[in-house]
Amino acid sequence: MRAVTFQAAGVVSVEERPEPELIDTGDAVVRIDATGVCGSDLHIFHGRVQIEPGFTIGHEYVGTVVAVGDAVTRVSVGDRVLGCFQTACGSCFFCRRGLYHRCLQSRTFGHGAALGSLQGTQADMALVPNADLILRRVPEGMSNDVALFAGDVMGTGFHAIDASGLRPGDVAAVLGLGPVGLCAVQAARAAGAAHVFAIDTVPERLSVAESFGAEPVHLVEQDARAIARGATEGRGVDVCIDAVGDPKVLESAIRLTRMCGSIQCVGVYAERAEVHLGLLWLKALTLRGGHANVIGHVDRVLAMLSAGVLDPSALVTRHMKLEEAPEAYAIYDRREALKIVLTP
Amino acid sequence: MRAVTFQAAGVVSVEERPEPELIDTGDAVVRIDATGVCGSDLHIFHGRVQIEPGFTIGHEYVGTVVAVGDAVTRVSVGDRVLGCFQTACGSCFFCRRGLYHRCLQSRTFGHGAALGSLQGTQADMALVPNADLILRRVPEGMSNDVALFAGDVMGTGFHAIDASGLRPGDVAAVLGLGPVGLCAVQAARAAGAAHVFAIDTVPERLSVAESFGAEPVHLVEQDARAIARGATEGRGVDVCIDAVGDPKVLESAIRLTRMCGSIQCVGVYAERAEVHLGLLWLKALTLRGGHANVIGHVDRVLAMLSAGVLDPSALVTRHMKLEEAPEAYAIYDRREALKIVLTP
Amino acid sequence: MRAVTFQAAGVVSVEERPEPELIDTGDAVVRIDATGVCGSDLHIFHGRVQIEPGFTIGHEYVGTVVAVGDAVTRVSVGDRVLGCFQTACGSCFFCRRGLYHRCLQSRTFGHGAALGSLQGTQADMALVPNADLILRRVPEGMSNDVALFAGDVMGTGFHAIDASGLRPGDVAAVLGLGPVGLCAVQAARAAGAAHVFAIDTVPERLSVAESFGAEPVHLVEQDARAIARGATEGRGVDVCIDAVGDPKVLESAIRLTRMCGSIQCVGVYAERAEVHLGLLWLKALTLRGGHANVIGHVDRVLAMLSAGVLDPSALVTRHMKLEEAPEAYAIYDRREALKIVLTP
Amino acid sequence: MRAVTFQAAGVVSVEERPEPELIDTGDAVVRIDATGVCGSDLHIFHGRVQIEPGFTIGHEYVGTVVAVGDAVTRVSVGDRVLGCFQTACGSCFFCRRGLYHRCLQSRTFGHGAALGSLQGTQADMALVPNADLILRRVPEGMSNDVALFAGDVMGTGFHAIDASGLRPGDVAAVLGLGPVGLCAVQAARAAGAAHVFAIDTVPERLSVAESFGAEPVHLVEQDARAIARGATEGRGVDVCIDAVGDPKVLESAIRLTRMCGSIQCVGVYAERAEVHLGLLWLKALTLRGGHANVIGHVDRVLAMLSAGVLDPSALVTRHMKLEEAPEAYAIYDRREALKIVLTP
Repeated sequence: MRAVTFQAAGVVSVEERPEPELIDTGDAVVRIDATGVCGSDLHIFHGRVQIEPGFTIGHEYVGTVVAVGDAVTRVSVGDRVLGCFQTACGSCFFCRRGLYHRCLQSRTFGHGAALGSLQGTQADMALVPNADLILRRVPEGMSNDVALFAGDVMGTGFHAIDASGLRPGDVAAVLGLGPVGLCAVQAARAAGAAHVFAIDTVPERLSVAESFGAEPVHLVEQDARAIARGATEGRGVDVCIDAVGDPKVLESAIRLTRMCGSIQCVGVYAERAEVHLGLLWLKALTLRGGHANVIGHVDRVLAMLSAGVLDPSALVTRHMKLEEAPEAYAIYDRREALKIVLTP
Repeated sequence: MRAVTFQAAGVVSVEERPEPELIDTGDAVVRIDATGVCGSDLHIFHGRVQIEPGFTIGHEYVGTVVAVGDAVTRVSVGDRVLGCFQTACGSCFFCRRGLYHRCLQSRTFGHGAALGSLQGTQADMALVPNADLILRRVPEGMSNDVALFAGDVMGTGFHAIDASGLRPGDVAAVLGLGPVGLCAVQAARAAGAAHVFAIDTVPERLSVAESFGAEPVHLVEQDARAIARGATEGRGVDVCIDAVGDPKVLESAIRLTRMCGSIQCVGVYAERAEVHLGLLWLKALTLRGGHANVIGHVDRVLAMLSAGVLDPSALVTRHMKLEEAPEAYAIYDRREALKIVLTP
Repeated sequence: MRAVTFQAAGVVSVEERPEPELIDTGDAVVRIDATGVCGSDLHIFHGRVQIEPGFTIGHEYVGTVVAVGDAVTRVSVGDRVLGCFQTACGSCFFCRRGLYHRCLQSRTFGHGAALGSLQGTQADMALVPNADLILRRVPEGMSNDVALFAGDVMGTGFHAIDASGLRPGDVAAVLGLGPVGLCAVQAARAAGAAHVFAIDTVPERLSVAESFGAEPVHLVEQDARAIARGATEGRGVDVCIDAVGDPKVLESAIRLTRMCGSIQCVGVYAERAEVHLGLLWLKALTLRGGHANVIGHVDRVLAMLSAGVLDPSALVTRHMKLEEAPEAYAIYDRREALKIVLTP
Repeated sequence: MRAVTFQAAGVVSVEERPEPELIDTGDAVVRIDATGVCGSDLHIFHGRVQIEPGFTIGHEYVGTVVAVGDAVTRVSVGDRVLGCFQTACGSCFFCRRGLYHRCLQSRTFGHGAALGSLQGTQADMALVPNADLILRRVPEGMSNDVALFAGDVMGTGFHAIDASGLRPGDVAAVLGLGPVGLCAVQAARAAGAAHVFAIDTVPERLSVAESFGAEPVHLVEQDARAIARGATEGRGVDVCIDAVGDPKVLESAIRLTRMCGSIQCVGVYAERAEVHLGLLWLKALTLRGGHANVIGHVDRVLAMLSAGVLDPSALVTRHMKLEEAPEAYAIYDRREALKIVLTP
């Protein structure tokens, strides 16, 4: 079968690979119908993630089950399914608390030996361990474009809002309007936010956010803090999503958020940085970060996508064939697309 | 000034009364601009509530502040305000926990000596104790019709959903589509419910619910349980709102709700009744009831009304003059209106 | 091997049975070191539970792992383990929410075909499905008597308090001082209750409760309501545990509990009954019931038992040999013991 | 009357001041029976807090009500009372959410114009605004030493644990064993922590912590991280309290805490500092800080003190007369006492 593989920084190839076979009784093999190119694929593409040359990449996928192990009971051969970007064991300390994103035996699709040696989904077929926990049947009538958001990008946007503690009637701000930030905008509106301030510098992204029900704020040309205060009797927003992962953005978040409010960092931090602890403390803020608990949220995200309460289809700005992956990565790297979907 | 007063079962009058005067330093006097007729006014009208003949009734109101005591800091003379249907002290055991609806010194407008001897708001003017806690300024551009829902009916619909523990992506059912049930439908949708099944027997109410984003279900002509199960892989709904207050409705709620789900009774119960405790227990349901914590919710309800996330204006099916109150009560008693708004 | 089997109402036997063998890759076989006789075994003994004659009973157990399937990773042959009274799949809708007690594929040890055809633990050996989720290693130094409480009776007492929402400094009441009620008393104290009123009619049980830190209240000879009010400025208790399962007890709970308080029914209800819905509603109480989520709690219960924060060893009033099971059931049926532990 | 006043860095005096008089109808005047010297008084003493020379300091107090305004209903002349270190309005946005510590009109006793110009309690008498919310009657039989902890130090230790989200059976660490840290140790044990690791370098403080049920860990001579991991199968503690307020301590907290765990900073931060955001993010930690919500917790803290579930009396290592205040500050400054109580 064909598979998109990492070769070196800036180089991906489409290569022949053997078809996956069932290993454990909980496995399924899925024939891929659509697979996305994601921001974290770009980290790999840039050579900033440790991964073996030749490893198959990709972790957003919709497909059809072609084989299941004996222990699989929730999906069957022939089912149209979507899956989560990572696996979980279902029985460790963290899984038992529903914290699937921190499963002690988790493996992430398409991220090499460092994250569990699980071949990616940008291929004709993929092996899915613990299929009962990782896969869900695609609700009738849902397009591939929508379904593949459930297991990664929309799951992450939803997580941002869910973990932030936002309650209906609250005011939210989202800093950074990439696909995850835009999904967080939708999730905030769907969860009853009275206002969502969507903050970025790219006019196209601000427009998409506005079409999703947010009030767009240009980070440089407008005064986000004044706007947030104007809508909240001077207090600042109840919750703030940092969808970038940059200390300057975190500083803005600390300033935008009201006392006793909450900041949720879904943008990735990997380094030490200076933080205004004094302000954080004085304002009694809650700061949380980390990967999204996509497995924990996928049922509800899927229900909302199916009902149209969430609808990320506008984020898919390009469809390409699997064999065009090298060109797709180049386009994505030039930020000429919000989300590219590859079809085998 | 003029005031609508209870006289006897089935008889209300418009009478002259002295204008209210400030008593405590936390009081405000409000000139009423609009005041609603509510289902609980009807209980009084029917003589089922203990109240002194001649007492001014009514508890939904929007108006203009004409006087404030020395200790009032959050509203000023000239402010256009809305208020909650009951008062709270702000310092008792329950208020300290935010359970304002069970304040040990709470007084309810227009319910006689039994509920604190606080004259009602169906009048030219009303005295509002503890104005800093009870009144809110009406957001710019909000109509009287919308604003007066914040302090009672929408506050109650919102409470039903908030107290039920509904989370985005959940499936809800609302049993009983009077004004409170219809507001609960809106609140459930606004809070991210993937599906809201709105259940009643009156076609007009089912239509309104549908226009609010619910899936209407005729209680007699359709099989609500089968429909709920069909949308939830056979489980039943996550949360169920009993907006009626009848043991038969509670029985339906117990059957409609999935294991470990939640039933919120905003419909009033006053008696003993047979309950299927066995089923409640086996399904590990949570059953909650009681008055709505309108004071606790009014900020967020108001924010959502202002943003248009909630919009009950379709429920106001009739406007009348204050002096037409006797006719208004007769119309409401014949169920010829969902909500009547009186204007002094 | 030997196994205690149900024969007919009032008759259990010790019979020869084939040793269990691994079936699924997630299974373990455990050689039983100690197994308890529980109140729910008594329901079986009385013939009130549907179960096949000859079925092995028992579901409280501590033992040593003698075989594990290929997929088991958290326990190994030779480990001293305790287990939960029921199994869970770890991947259904309910397991994914941590509601293991309502797992769609749950099987209960020793309860016949109706609850999953899983042979009981009152035997020399037992087969444990999904061992990674159901078994835990016994912490060093913990006795069998203590360990076997983790997977059933203390798990249930802990659940009563955990699900009730009790917070440190709250006042609790426990109605019914069987082993579960007494464990709830300990759990309430351990969770920081300022007062725990332990209510029953049996002096011995009241004494044990007092030794566990509760204030004993004789249901008939004392006025529980006056005592509860005296300790709470007239309000009533914050949370009330119904550890009996009788409508009269529930009525007492409704009267003992303060407004907006919580009643948790761990005693079993199976029938319809009259409930004072009016009072429940007026007081805005939360009523919850159902089986305990023992799998969800077992880690924390075990940590507390290991630290001595919980210590149910005083509840084991009798040790007997496995072959004395018929006599043990007779003794337990005459209420001559709180907990009997059988040793193979 | 006599009052302890700030004069200059390192200098406090006992001076004559006029007795306080009622100003608002919600005020009370309290004759002080005992008043503590606190760590934050030391900040003032050191000249690090902006305060007017001559201002009366002190904010921990127990006393007897000698006058009340017309609106006060919960305490009466002659009542023995304790009070909170700050006031709250009871009706602003934050008070309405129970976030009394961030009340928009809050005033702190003995902190000068910057915090509301409210004279301190190290005096013969003190004026207490909004007495219904700020004062509580001292439960019968409770000593002054214990009672004055409720409104400040124990309230803060309790807040640390309450805000951290600790649940019964969790493992906690407390970094820094001053009075607040030691109170947090007690609160953690009272809330059901299976283990509390109490970390400091001062042997006396480690001994007190051990007597409070903690496992003492010497920060330098022992390996706190190895000890924490040893007790948690390698994970780290569930919650970690930073009772110091130093970036190095926060770094330790980040390393000691398990993935998805919680860090609560009750130690004060006022500056920018470098934080290992990468580790915070990767471990998906929750970081919270800020002043304690003492008003929100005082009922429950008082109930636990009254029941003996919490008992800080061992922390009072010195009693002195009010006129000895200059010497008391000097002793406290030399760290020769954990808590000094002054008696007028």
